[in-house]
Amino acid sequence: MAPRPLDYESINENVKKTQYAVRGELYLRASELQKEGKKIIFTNVGNPHALGQKPLTFPRQVIALCQAPFLLDDPNVGLLFPADAIARAKHYLSLTSGGLGAYSDSRGLIGIRKEIAEFIERRDGYPSDPELVFLTDGASKGVMQMLNTIIGSNKDGILVPVPQYPLYSAAITLFGGSLVPYFLEEEANWGLDVNNLRQAIAGARSRGITVKAMVIINPGNPTGQCLSRTNIQELLQFCYQENLALFADEVYQQNIYQDERPFISAKKVLFDMGPPISKELQLISFHTVSKGYWGECGQRGGYFEMTNLSPQTVDEIYKVSSISLSMNVSGQIFLGLMVNPPKPGDISYLKFSMESKAVLESLRRRAQIMTDGFNSCRNVVCNFTEGAMYSFPQIRLPPRAIEAAKKAGKVPDVFYCLKLLEATGISTVPGSGFGQKEGVFHLRTTILPAEEDMPAIMASFKKFNDGFMEQYEDYRGYSRM
Amino acid sequence: MAPRPLDYESINENVKKTQYAVRGELYLRASELQKEGKKIIFTNVGNPHALGQKPLTFPRQVIALCQAPFLLDDPNVGLLFPADAIARAKHYLSLTSGGLGAYSDSRGLIGIRKEIAEFIERRDGYPSDPELVFLTDGASKGVMQMLNTIIGSNKDGILVPVPQYPLYSAAITLFGGSLVPYFLEEEANWGLDVNNLRQAIAGARSRGITVKAMVIINPGNPTGQCLSRTNIQELLQFCYQENLALFADEVYQQNIYQDERPFISAKKVLFDMGPPISKELQLISFHTVSKGYWGECGQRGGYFEMTNLSPQTVDEIYKVSSISLSMNVSGQIFLGLMVNPPKPGDISYLKFSMESKAVLESLRRRAQIMTDGFNSCRNVVCNFTEGAMYSFPQIRLPPRAIEAAKKAGKVPDVFYCLKLLEATGISTVPGSGFGQKEGVFHLRTTILPAEEDMPAIMASFKKFNDGFMEQYEDYRGYSRM
Ligand SMILES: Cc1ncc(COP(=O)(O)O)c(C=O)c1O
Ligand SMILES: Cc1ncc(COP(=O)(O)O)c(C=O)c1O
Repeated sequence: MAPRPLDYESINENVKKTQYAVRGELYLRASELQKEGKKIIFTNVGNPHALGQKPLTFPRQVIALCQAPFLLDDPNVGLLFPADAIARAKHYLSLTSGGLGAYSDSRGLIGIRKEIAEFIERRDGYPSDPELVFLTDGASKGVMQMLNTIIGSNKDGILVPVPQYPLYSAAITLFGGSLVPYFLEEEANWGLDVNNLRQAIAGARSRGITVKAMVIINPGNPTGQCLSRTNIQELLQFCYQENLALFADEVYQQNIYQDERPFISAKKVLFDMGPPISKELQLISFHTVSKGYWGECGQRGGYFEMTNLSPQTVDEIYKVSSISLSMNVSGQIFLGLMVNPPKPGDISYLKFSMESKAVLESLRRRAQIMTDGFNSCRNVVCNFTEGAMYSFPQIRLPPRAIEAAKKAGKVPDVFYCLKLLEATGISTVPGSGFGQKEGVFHLRTTILPAEEDMPAIMASFKKFNDGFMEQYEDYRGYSRM
Repeated sequence: MAPRPLDYESINENVKKTQYAVRGELYLRASELQKEGKKIIFTNVGNPHALGQKPLTFPRQVIALCQAPFLLDDPNVGLLFPADAIARAKHYLSLTSGGLGAYSDSRGLIGIRKEIAEFIERRDGYPSDPELVFLTDGASKGVMQMLNTIIGSNKDGILVPVPQYPLYSAAITLFGGSLVPYFLEEEANWGLDVNNLRQAIAGARSRGITVKAMVIINPGNPTGQCLSRTNIQELLQFCYQENLALFADEVYQQNIYQDERPFISAKKVLFDMGPPISKELQLISFHTVSKGYWGECGQRGGYFEMTNLSPQTVDEIYKVSSISLSMNVSGQIFLGLMVNPPKPGDISYLKFSMESKAVLESLRRRAQIMTDGFNSCRNVVCNFTEGAMYSFPQIRLPPRAIEAAKKAGKVPDVFYCLKLLEATGISTVPGSGFGQKEGVFHLRTTILPAEEDMPAIMASFKKFNDGFMEQYEDYRGYSRM
């Protein structure tokens, strides 16, 4: 019998080739174990609320009122909601036509896009045009849409850092483009060396690939580094010389855990450089409500800003956005709240700033506890998490562990992470899911488990790791397998 | 200078080829006029809340509580929320891990998927497996994902009704597939004739195209017809013989305005037919919270159910869903509420059923007013809107109007609709945006303007139309242009 159209043999080859490790084998095994009753610590994905982070009160009050606008006419509303939340809900409802139940313009509500543009202006000190800010159901969807716009065939290449957040590799494969990897330098705290970029682009060109864009993730996922101004300047210059668009994934811009390298946006550095580059280089910058001290992942609120795109291209992007009508409207309002949190003097200011500071300060401490914890383990070295939400320790696997993995038919770091999961319930993602140099192994955890649980988790990790190392470094240990 | 990667010349050709008329030239012109201060009646898209439909109270109460879970601990909560909304919010929060701020599983929350499967079982009388129900940010995203799964190259064809909702044509072009049109029979109240299907598939095959799937929209958009059981049986048989998957877009299943042909799902008819077809035909069924008496378009809650897909294919679809992490969680809860509205005996039952009945009964009356209104106009004939939310009158344009359109560089129905917009503020979509037979012209309006505004809108339409016809049917009129 001929295969049916949705049988595995028949479907889109690009779908089959696509890989997405964050929810891959490890995650599936963890879900199974959870069903069987094992306690799992999900550190595979940056999902703060799933690990106990509480939502900030003020934005949730505003959204609740927007969802239930009839409450605004209820004489008792003031018993449950502060006046500034009520005022803000009225404001956001006035930006919609039909409230949260109506499709918005496919680019998002213009009122919210204006608030975002004003935020970008305040942040960077340069003008931002709301017509060039498009809202999306999470940054992921924006990244996918822009990759789909720029990739026309498998001869179109995208420079992607290695290690990288696999959204990029997955979407490039899905849309039939070519991923052109460039390595980050683990020894230089995961910095970016322009020589690696030049090599990568030369290699790709020799294979007939037109490299069209470069991706940076700053602060980095999974690597946690913050790029310096000089580094960003160099890579902008490189993109300009090589005629590449730059995709700047800046979703972790509020997650910074050191003071030497504060976040600077690629757009600010570009505009600081002045013409001609500032007027020509095509830049797409991504942001989201999923990260920062918000962690509102489930709300799916993201945006991208386009710099130096022609109106004709912007129209094409708008047209493609229209096909799915509009992004979710409450997520749009979360974006408005993110760029306009309560100000000093507002009724809710004190509470809001206490809540948000508590989240960020705790993340900073957790970043330190994790890095220190990993560095205290046998055969583990780990750069400090300067930003974002992840630790990415290198695990130096003994040759015998690598052999044992081979026997088990597993990639070595997958083998290690599965054993870790079974022994401790800690669900991580193997470094191979993000890309790493040949023969070098990592894992990624988030720094998100509750601060009070951290010491126990790190102790449990250390116990497993040091036992694993002992087992595979020592012959008797190995034979006991 | 070489074009830059995001200049119009450089971007993905499929993006450029894609057309999406619902938010095309007419919509853009209407938006301009609105900015200039003209009152616009947006009937271009099925967006009930934008035209004044109020949200149903109970579901919004539940969602508000889910967004602001701290209210559940507030001693005053009972002053603003009924006890059954409070209980329901607790129930839905118990299905999440981390509330509305956490990414869910990429297929959606399993608790909601179970509620949907139970709804399908009650509706159809056949089992439904929650593992085969995936949640999406609106049905549009699900349709796009499934088209992307099945289309591997431009040799892969998808049978699409003409006229059709342009989500299909747009997504097929975007993903590089081939649209294979089949005509609906306007004279037979937009019924589906299997002979047309056979011709269409034969023609496509002679051009080297492998037809992989067929799309039906039932009830129809833009055509408003409800398919009979016999018709659905015939087309299932056809798909089975020709080895096609069936995509059944059933988003209007609760929008039915006649009693002769109630909605029957494609899945029910398939299972009624029994083996072998019921065990082999691959069917994907789509539904949403955007339509029905909900009209919660801005919430972006959709799902699709897969029938007769192998676990391997389902895994591939799951993997692709994972790339964008999860759909918005509040939209998922809306889906739960849609399939489990308040029941007789619940505190909120009476209010809920009054509100929902009022919406549906008014839609039914509006369908009638519109059809009658169009049929009273010169050179206009219109089938009755049996279901969905649209009127799709045929406009018999006089030859001189067609000439005038040509001179103005416009497709004739675009020309007519633009004049209608300028004269009356009524924003419609020209039939050419949905496809129609050569030389035959239509427009689509929604039946959504408020019932009390309907007579005035139809009078204003009639005045414009009859004047237009007079102008172009009579020589002096024409020369006055
Ligand atoms: C680097 C990076 N970009 C984008 C995203 C997507 O975020 P969202 O789609 O939730 O906005 C993530 C999520 O973890 C991320 O780590
Ligand atoms: C036939 C049809 N399918 C799908 C959709 C998409 O609905 P949504 O994405 O809002 O669920 C629409 C919207 O108008 C439609 O008319």
